[in-house]
Amino acid sequence: MFKYRSPELDEVRLQDGFLAPRQHTNGKVTIPSAVRQCKDTGRIDAFRLQWREGMPNKPHIFWDSDFAKVLEGMALQLMIDPSPELAAELDGYVDLVISAQQPDGFLNTYFTQVEPEKRWDRLITNHQLYCAGHLMEAAVAHFQATGKRKFLDCMCRYADYIATVFGPGPNQKKGYPGHEEIELALCKLYDATGEKRYLKLAEFFVDTRGQSPNYFQTEEGVAEDYLPVVQAHLPVREQQTAEGHAVRAVYLYCAMADLAAHTGDTVLLTRCEEIWKNITEKRMYLTGGIGSTLRNERFTCDYHLPHDGYAESCASIGLIFFTRRMMNLTGEACYADVLEQTLYNGALSGISLQGDNFFYVNRLETGADTWEYGVTYARERRPWFSCSCCPTSFCRFLPQLASYCWSYAQEELRLEIPAAGQARFRGCQVEVQSQYPYDGKIRITFHGQGQFTFSCRVPGWCKQICVSLNGQDQNALQRQNGYLSWNRLWQDGDIIELTLEMPVEIIRADLRVSSCRGKVALQRGPLVYAVEGLDNAADPGALLLNPESDWQLEPVQGLPKGTLGLRGKGWKESLPNACGLYSNATPRYEETSILAVPYALWQNRGDTRMSVWLRNGKGC
Amino acid sequence: MFKYRSPELDEVRLQDGFLAPRQHTNGKVTIPSAVRQCKDTGRIDAFRLQWREGMPNKPHIFWDSDFAKVLEGMALQLMIDPSPELAAELDGYVDLVISAQQPDGFLNTYFTQVEPEKRWDRLITNHQLYCAGHLMEAAVAHFQATGKRKFLDCMCRYADYIATVFGPGPNQKKGYPGHEEIELALCKLYDATGEKRYLKLAEFFVDTRGQSPNYFQTEEGVAEDYLPVVQAHLPVREQQTAEGHAVRAVYLYCAMADLAAHTGDTVLLTRCEEIWKNITEKRMYLTGGIGSTLRNERFTCDYHLPHDGYAESCASIGLIFFTRRMMNLTGEACYADVLEQTLYNGALSGISLQGDNFFYVNRLETGADTWEYGVTYARERRPWFSCSCCPTSFCRFLPQLASYCWSYAQEELRLEIPAAGQARFRGCQVEVQSQYPYDGKIRITFHGQGQFTFSCRVPGWCKQICVSLNGQDQNALQRQNGYLSWNRLWQDGDIIELTLEMPVEIIRADLRVSSCRGKVALQRGPLVYAVEGLDNAADPGALLLNPESDWQLEPVQGLPKGTLGLRGKGWKESLPNACGLYSNATPRYEETSILAVPYALWQNRGDTRMSVWLRNGKGC
Repeated sequence: MFKYRSPELDEVRLQDGFLAPRQHTNGKVTIPSAVRQCKDTGRIDAFRLQWREGMPNKPHIFWDSDFAKVLEGMALQLMIDPSPELAAELDGYVDLVISAQQPDGFLNTYFTQVEPEKRWDRLITNHQLYCAGHLMEAAVAHFQATGKRKFLDCMCRYADYIATVFGPGPNQKKGYPGHEEIELALCKLYDATGEKRYLKLAEFFVDTRGQSPNYFQTEEGVAEDYLPVVQAHLPVREQQTAEGHAVRAVYLYCAMADLAAHTGDTVLLTRCEEIWKNITEKRMYLTGGIGSTLRNERFTCDYHLPHDGYAESCASIGLIFFTRRMMNLTGEACYADVLEQTLYNGALSGISLQGDNFFYVNRLETGADTWEYGVTYARERRPWFSCSCCPTSFCRFLPQLASYCWSYAQEELRLEIPAAGQARFRGCQVEVQSQYPYDGKIRITFHGQGQFTFSCRVPGWCKQICVSLNGQDQNALQRQNGYLSWNRLWQDGDIIELTLEMPVEIIRADLRVSSCRGKVALQRGPLVYAVEGLDNAADPGALLLNPESDWQLEPVQGLPKGTLGLRGKGWKESLPNACGLYSNATPRYEETSILAVPYALWQNRGDTRMSVWLRNGKGC
Repeated sequence: MFKYRSPELDEVRLQDGFLAPRQHTNGKVTIPSAVRQCKDTGRIDAFRLQWREGMPNKPHIFWDSDFAKVLEGMALQLMIDPSPELAAELDGYVDLVISAQQPDGFLNTYFTQVEPEKRWDRLITNHQLYCAGHLMEAAVAHFQATGKRKFLDCMCRYADYIATVFGPGPNQKKGYPGHEEIELALCKLYDATGEKRYLKLAEFFVDTRGQSPNYFQTEEGVAEDYLPVVQAHLPVREQQTAEGHAVRAVYLYCAMADLAAHTGDTVLLTRCEEIWKNITEKRMYLTGGIGSTLRNERFTCDYHLPHDGYAESCASIGLIFFTRRMMNLTGEACYADVLEQTLYNGALSGISLQGDNFFYVNRLETGADTWEYGVTYARERRPWFSCSCCPTSFCRFLPQLASYCWSYAQEELRLEIPAAGQARFRGCQVEVQSQYPYDGKIRITFHGQGQFTFSCRVPGWCKQICVSLNGQDQNALQRQNGYLSWNRLWQDGDIIELTLEMPVEIIRADLRVSSCRGKVALQRGPLVYAVEGLDNAADPGALLLNPESDWQLEPVQGLPKGTLGLRGKGWKESLPNACGLYSNATPRYEETSILAVPYALWQNRGDTRMSVWLRNGKGC
């Protein structure tokens, strides 16, 4: 059982200066831009099923997933920002998608038009079940947003058809997806319909994964050393570390958490806890990025976190999905800490402030020697990619931002992230006023009346607080598991005032992380800071922080009103000209001031170089 | 025209403690071990042409090259260490190879037995011409070592057949190898036979490369962005930077240098100079390693030199081959500096002192977070690899070591690297006595009599020298282009005494190299040093050098007699236990002494962690 649930999108609302504008931009820019890209590239026309060999825009095996994620985003956006135009546009696209369903329930534009004879071939690479999963998530969101069942019913038919193909029966395939996604989608389908058979199918896919004989090896000839890339090296109940392709991995872990909640399977829960710890204690960037290498976009080994690693946007978003489920399952504060860290840093860094350019990879440093390889772009955001999972992930992620700020139980409301906004709960409207994440002063006002527990998370980064209820000092209140709680009959006008002390912290990594040795990062509140070349006297790599420096808050030119940079002292290092690639030259140090800006906002003011981790002190 | 030539292997000899033992080990261990591996894996039996589908040990497209390199190594080894047993063994293998030649001259075990209909398909990947090139090099070495023409004639027949297939004629293929090698081999075939047609064929392959329309694109459907990987993105006369797969690149540049020498083509010479500068001034590790990434084992971009990059052993050896040609072409001292740097560090690091284990990749750092990916091994040397180019490269590289220490011109003998040994030149035996590279005191004694110029290189790393001839101070002697020269009638018993001051140098990299910022490396003479965990109080990553430290020379337990380590002062850094992956904890520093050993000798005393670049000074 989930102890908490995420709020519905119409129960909560954001009104802050950091997150809310991203939601607004999603409706105005990000979704329309993704729709246009889907149109221009043929991803929408693919559903007309009129493509024939020789025509342009040949459908691709994972195109359906891209458009499905845009549809899901449109539906979620409708819930936070109702619009008849958007509703009509979505309805038209939903009809188009439904029209592509085959009589037996199958719905996949590539395998209907391009390789119909290979419907279920090579699950390891063909993304059939992945595309199905994203369509299911879109259908559930559409149902929740509109109450219309047509898309949901269509996807139930598809799921029912898939359940005839895959399963434990004698004539059924024992396979499972090369890219996980359908497992968590089937859990959502179960949530939306109450039909246990969808949960059963999710369980089948999760439980069959990695069993011996290994389906990918025996049926598809996949080499053994590739199995960890798709989390099929072991049965999931024997997996204790995060392995392989990071997005696939966290999508699988989402489903494992869902199943643990729905079935009470304590082994699955323990595995989820262990894997989550492995990620966050040994394999995660300070920004909440995961997956350290382009090579299979994968987790590598403990403490291997090079600044020029991968940290795909979709993977950070997926880590939030997984972590949110763990919050709901356990109610432990450590999960909300990581969710907040990822949300405010490595997830939002993936999208430009204007909402139409995206990082596929989120590096922690770019410099003169930044190598941009292949199809990924590390230095500048791009509007679209040939594999364009990341832009469409933001379409569906951004409308959910408010839901990450609150947790709901039967008789408890938790404020997880005190961004300005509000929540409805048991007859009360709870309003949060703050300049969070730039300021720790939080004012929570209750409108209406209701008996329930109200809990307020004290973030893990916060060492000192000051709290009052209706002006009365509450500093003696014991925190329970990281939360301040009051159970009472809330009255109209009740006010909690909470101040989270938010000094600039000098962060160091475990010494086993070689890329961070001798370096520090700046963090204030939940925000990890980055130094951009354009604000400073030199490329960030040539700067050294003065460990004695005070740090002042300072508005930043060219970033949204309210953005606070950190201004401190340091040195600029230089070597004599023309001393060559390697020399015994002695460096010179000039005093300089250093400005750092929130990592999530970097590269929004023109091309520049950047570093999160900076050298600390003149070494010599 | 080459201004200098490399000495023949019977003109020179090594008697030092650093290089000569590697040559001895090559004959006793490395070559026999490679022969055994070739036998066990089927690489030798493949030449019997009795493999049929279903049998074990299916030949592979590049197996011929491995065995060819072993044969070349056996022939070269025979020249420095004659042995009737080795000669007989080699002769038997040569007969076997010759027996595999087809009536039309073709000789390739894979394309004769496995895919005979695809002889010249997919040059981009199929390594046909690469294998042919290595067989030609082996044949030339066999001819030089034994005077027997059978293998040479066999390969001339093969080359003549290839010249019917490839060329400018109307029915000839306009292709060229995906992995360069045959170009430089054809130049050697020309040197050995005087037949201009082999030079012409080499020119055809070099000149056709990268011309438009691009053969790989039009004939083999290769994507444009892959072309730089095989140096086919531009005609070679328009290439100014080192691009793509590092081994392929340097093999191409070898042939370009050979052709520049033989044809007087100044454009090719200029390109070679520019590319060599691009490599050594922007894309080379301090150790002489090249190719910064596993991804296509390639050059990346300027200053991109991560410690966990690639630096394949074969690539360093290939850089020596290219650099040696540039030495011979130009006589400039910069080339000998890089040759020495590569030879004493990143090339010899690839092989264990015992001679039977090899690094494929030569990292500059290993630690707790070292990720070993795929088929390559970064932490420990291995006896063999599925793609086993590196072990067999050593078989043929080690016998040539003495030849890198001297350059010959008509009337000039140059001592390039003053390792103990001797050279025969115009009636004189010139003997070098030294403890080089551990000591800079060099004593050069002339035996016999001869009129010629004797030149002695003053290495680029050396800032101060002291020199005398027959006891008479020669310190006023002007260096010409980095060399001290005396033209005279050398008399029996003439003695030059030269002292190269060899302090420990603290080396820094250009600040654009992000991996090296805030770090220094230790170098003494030509040797780059590395810190191994097993000699020290902590993993190298937790150590900081004291910039005020003196450095003492110290014998090293477990390394060959005469090996000198560097002993200095520093600190061991630690963070409080259990402060997590990221924290605001304050590090502690304990004073410690630090021992560094020559990089080329690391990981010869059991598994340990290592770093070349060390943090300098306590940052705070």
